[in-house]
Amino acid sequence: MERTDILVLGGGVAGIVAATTAKRCNAQKDVLVLRKEERVIIPCGIPYIMGSLRNIEEDDVPDSVLTDMGIRIKVDEALFIDEKSKMVKTKDGTDISYEKLILATGSEPIIPRWLEGTDLQNVCTIRKDKKYLEGILSKLKTCKKVIVVGGGFIGVEIADEINKLHKDVTIIEILPHVLAKVFDESMCVEVEETLRSRGVKVRNKTGIKKIVGDKKVQGVLLDNKETLEADAVVLSMGYRPNTQLTENTNIQVNEMGFIKTNEFMGTTSDNIFAVGDCAERRDFITGKLNPIMLASIAGTEGRIAAMNLYNINTIKEHLGTVAIFSTSIGGKGFGIAGITENQAKEGNIDYMIGTFEGVDRHPATLAEPHKQIVKLIVSRDSGIVIGGEAIGGLSTGELVNSIGLLIQNRTNVSSLLTTYIGTHPLLTPAPTSYPIIKAAEEVCAKRRVHLRLA
Amino acid sequence: MERTDILVLGGGVAGIVAATTAKRCNAQKDVLVLRKEERVIIPCGIPYIMGSLRNIEEDDVPDSVLTDMGIRIKVDEALFIDEKSKMVKTKDGTDISYEKLILATGSEPIIPRWLEGTDLQNVCTIRKDKKYLEGILSKLKTCKKVIVVGGGFIGVEIADEINKLHKDVTIIEILPHVLAKVFDESMCVEVEETLRSRGVKVRNKTGIKKIVGDKKVQGVLLDNKETLEADAVVLSMGYRPNTQLTENTNIQVNEMGFIKTNEFMGTTSDNIFAVGDCAERRDFITGKLNPIMLASIAGTEGRIAAMNLYNINTIKEHLGTVAIFSTSIGGKGFGIAGITENQAKEGNIDYMIGTFEGVDRHPATLAEPHKQIVKLIVSRDSGIVIGGEAIGGLSTGELVNSIGLLIQNRTNVSSLLTTYIGTHPLLTPAPTSYPIIKAAEEVCAKRRVHLRLA
Repeated sequence: MERTDILVLGGGVAGIVAATTAKRCNAQKDVLVLRKEERVIIPCGIPYIMGSLRNIEEDDVPDSVLTDMGIRIKVDEALFIDEKSKMVKTKDGTDISYEKLILATGSEPIIPRWLEGTDLQNVCTIRKDKKYLEGILSKLKTCKKVIVVGGGFIGVEIADEINKLHKDVTIIEILPHVLAKVFDESMCVEVEETLRSRGVKVRNKTGIKKIVGDKKVQGVLLDNKETLEADAVVLSMGYRPNTQLTENTNIQVNEMGFIKTNEFMGTTSDNIFAVGDCAERRDFITGKLNPIMLASIAGTEGRIAAMNLYNINTIKEHLGTVAIFSTSIGGKGFGIAGITENQAKEGNIDYMIGTFEGVDRHPATLAEPHKQIVKLIVSRDSGIVIGGEAIGGLSTGELVNSIGLLIQNRTNVSSLLTTYIGTHPLLTPAPTSYPIIKAAEEVCAKRRVHLRLA
Repeated sequence: MERTDILVLGGGVAGIVAATTAKRCNAQKDVLVLRKEERVIIPCGIPYIMGSLRNIEEDDVPDSVLTDMGIRIKVDEALFIDEKSKMVKTKDGTDISYEKLILATGSEPIIPRWLEGTDLQNVCTIRKDKKYLEGILSKLKTCKKVIVVGGGFIGVEIADEINKLHKDVTIIEILPHVLAKVFDESMCVEVEETLRSRGVKVRNKTGIKKIVGDKKVQGVLLDNKETLEADAVVLSMGYRPNTQLTENTNIQVNEMGFIKTNEFMGTTSDNIFAVGDCAERRDFITGKLNPIMLASIAGTEGRIAAMNLYNINTIKEHLGTVAIFSTSIGGKGFGIAGITENQAKEGNIDYMIGTFEGVDRHPATLAEPHKQIVKLIVSRDSGIVIGGEAIGGLSTGELVNSIGLLIQNRTNVSSLLTTYIGTHPLLTPAPTSYPIIKAAEEVCAKRRVHLRLA
């Protein structure tokens, strides 16, 4: 029987942030991270081990981020939670007692049951597992044609990276566009154009029927009966939360399969918290369940849980989850925060749009300017900013973080007209055409008409 | 006698934003921009015409930003304001009547009276005047040694650009560091190291006694009696507001020489507004006068005045001026928002600091990562974020804009611990080490101790 105070199950972003925050807030407590993996890799960096990084080690998260703070690490697997005795049983046969338990068990790739051929050689998924990924990398070396099934973030990034290895890469996406679930159409089109200009083939509205081959994959049969040749297939068809440990406990799981949580990431079982991909999140506007999984959200949740383990220390000022994410292809940046126009339509949210197109440097003649498009989505009556999108250069990630702050602060669009910003020729757009403010101007002009008609 | 409704004096950033916003808000009104310059250039782009841009035309602001909206432009100079008849007399002898007058007359370089030799050939200042700048450019071509007197933003940027032309460039700064008025010491040191690594010489704590030469400049005599050779000298010793037009009017000027303004940029004279470098601004924390001049502030003020010309349309949610600025040298970015540590000390503001050092990409092994340092300055008792600094790569400009939003929203540092951010390997730091949040964590840990001791 081993004892700890705060037991964290899972060594990914959610687990790391939960453990380090818990230790920071409770220096006298023992914190133990129990994880399956010998070594941990940065999840968002996984696509980049394919092409941009020289080897997989460059994507390592050093254990020192934990051990330097006095947090213990145990490589083993939790099999069962005994809530009454506040104890976790592991695969190696250890019982670990805890005061507080944090589930940061993450997610795993979805492999549809209906899909034949997923067990053929050279069919793979993208797992947060270093050994598995090393296997993929060595297989890919000898391949010429690679098909990526699923054009979400991971599919798109993996495809672009594999393309850097001079392979023939095709993305197959069943929706009208890649990234269609997270970006609005114009942005998806821009991403597709960028991918194609770099040699990645993109086939939208294309379903897959089965993966064909004899022992080793030879291709995929599409819904339209066409067969595409391939000597490797990467399945990136979504992820499902890892919640096996909740079986036979009081920890409830919601209808989407995520562990139910309260405002402070507490589960329905006392002293047990859930954070990261395995945990439920609700949209900051509608309060509805949102199946989004992002490392950055996992980090925020890890922090929230860990600060509030023993009592409610930190009152959240922002309710619900605001998804903010960005990606980069070919030196361009694509990012989004909050509600997209598609989500607003689907959610029956009455909204207005303001858009501005410019460049991300001034004058635009300076070295390496990028076309920049920023769109703000604003609640029509209240004027509150509820979403935003940006396309531009490599500052797009921080630009959408600004939009994320506007959303979380429930910023009224009119206040943007009098907001101070900073600009510099080599770093930002011009002061006369700062895109967030110009987009806000467009919304405000529309709102003036709307308010006069009301 | 010429008539207009809204007369804007000055064609720079403040004037352009004021004119375009006024037209947008008052489509039926005639808007006239009266300016001295035949062509307008982007002020913040001026340093870059020295080296980075191929020619000065690349820094042009096209008149179409005004004329496309139906705004008229007149190249002439205002000499006198007749408040009673609501009329401006020009150099060409025209009387222009107005309903509303916006002064956006800008600033001009300070040439100290005590400094001998400023009228020698090849001694120049940096003016927002295309013809003058063309003259400097052609002179610099034949020079080998250039001395830049004054290591503020303009001095530093100009020096780095002239250095790109393979000249021997020395910055002379009387304060202990370049940029000492706007950045904290560690950041100034980082800027100096970057400049020196690129071949720019920096001499701090060095005063200038006089400029020596016979017709043409030959060098400068320093306070320590040393003489430095030079065949060109650039004076960047600060700027003073252009307020000559206020003489013999009811438009009052404050003790620092700026035109007094109210919350909506109205002057002490009815129907007359002042925006940009010529206008007074007050610090958002202390309410004290602040002589800062930035194009981005000019733009915000132009917008505020123009929206509120005929009645108070847009209530400002943020009071006072928050200075946000950034610069870039050698691919690095340096930026600041709000109060610096030095300003806090001088202003007797009780503050706490949180600092985080990391990299601006994750993993740090990805292409072109930059060391990133972010510092937050927080009011000790209230916990409100009042300032922040960042050093990093080219996303620093947008990162300090995020900090600027935190400041303007009077964000409590504890709320940052539960704030959602977005991260991507190629665009931002890691979710486990997002610097604004990590710096906030440090402040919050200190505050916990502080609150327990209280």
